[in-house]
Amino acid sequence: MILVDIGNTHFHIKDKKVYDLKKIKKFNEKVFYISVNKKKEKKLLELNPNAVNLKNYINFKTEYKNLGIDRIMACKTVKNGVVIDAGSAVTIDVMQNGVHKGGIIMPGIFAFKEAFVKISKVLDVEIKKFDLDKLPQNTNKALLYGSVGAVLKIIKSFKGPYYFTGGDGEFLCSFVNGIYIKDLVFRGMEKTIKENYDNSFTKR
Amino acid sequence: MILVDIGNTHFHIKDKKVYDLKKIKKFNEKVFYISVNKKKEKKLLELNPNAVNLKNYINFKTEYKNLGIDRIMACKTVKNGVVIDAGSAVTIDVMQNGVHKGGIIMPGIFAFKEAFVKISKVLDVEIKKFDLDKLPQNTNKALLYGSVGAVLKIIKSFKGPYYFTGGDGEFLCSFVNGIYIKDLVFRGMEKTIKENYDNSFTKR
Repeated sequence: MILVDIGNTHFHIKDKKVYDLKKIKKFNEKVFYISVNKKKEKKLLELNPNAVNLKNYINFKTEYKNLGIDRIMACKTVKNGVVIDAGSAVTIDVMQNGVHKGGIIMPGIFAFKEAFVKISKVLDVEIKKFDLDKLPQNTNKALLYGSVGAVLKIIKSFKGPYYFTGGDGEFLCSFVNGIYIKDLVFRGMEKTIKENYDNSFTKR
Repeated sequence: MILVDIGNTHFHIKDKKVYDLKKIKKFNEKVFYISVNKKKEKKLLELNPNAVNLKNYINFKTEYKNLGIDRIMACKTVKNGVVIDAGSAVTIDVMQNGVHKGGIIMPGIFAFKEAFVKISKVLDVEIKKFDLDKLPQNTNKALLYGSVGAVLKIIKSFKGPYYFTGGDGEFLCSFVNGIYIKDLVFRGMEKTIKENYDNSFTKR
């Protein structure tokens, strides 16, 4: 079984126990996928025409309209707490008793960096650890506080535990007393597959 | 007396009681200016070679290294509170008893909008009023919360009063119990000129 999570920027692939960013290819095993990028999805389906889109098999409670399938999967195995997927965007979703209560989208850390440089070349932030409790006294710390710090402030405004995933998840997690789970989205996909084990798609 | 505040994107000019965004020209009166943009500053000086750069006449208490001259001027007339200049970037500076305690730089509202669209065309936020106390239940509100909301959360994490200026100052001000002062930077420039009235630059 191969799991593919097609993000805005990358293909994330779980091949047996290994999950990583990879180029897409023709797989010999059954492929299950989710996608937020139509162009990349088309490429996957050209090479693997029988790949199953898990969006058709979702069982997830929320009043949020058109919640991204990647966010649903990241939240699916979390009963209570905040789920943060820090990729090209940072999504922050709040779960209570297995119900999705709403969520927030912020720019990813790299998107913040790019946005600053576009305003002025002087605003080229170096991303590193800093103290969120100290008022910045120089440009780099002011930019760090206004990007990484802003993301953390929003996260901390909700009750934990805090579950992080995504490329910058480990970095953000190091600021709060959080839990970093590299394969959180894949766990949601696996749960979805298990829930639908008796459904038609596993028999196709 | 003409006051010119050269920002990252615009020339802001105060000509007598009128302050506005204008094209730069040769002025017949004495010109005082501040600048964060060397190229635009050069243009001003080509047309007005005797224009006085107020950065050489600053009297301002801070431990912040290389604090932008525009931020100094915006803070100069505020004794206590938070000073927010919302232009292409949003700067948030904290004043206590006339002393600058530190500050934060965030992307401007338009920079957030651009950053989101660059991540995905789907993330095209429409900037408008929203309720900061409600967890977003759709994409536009999630993006508003993660941009405008993040700026407001950072601002509100400090004790007011909140003084807003800049192109998006009035909009941001409407969310908190703040004070919008269109010519806050010019007020600081005027104060600086008064403080230096007996100094050499007024006699040149």
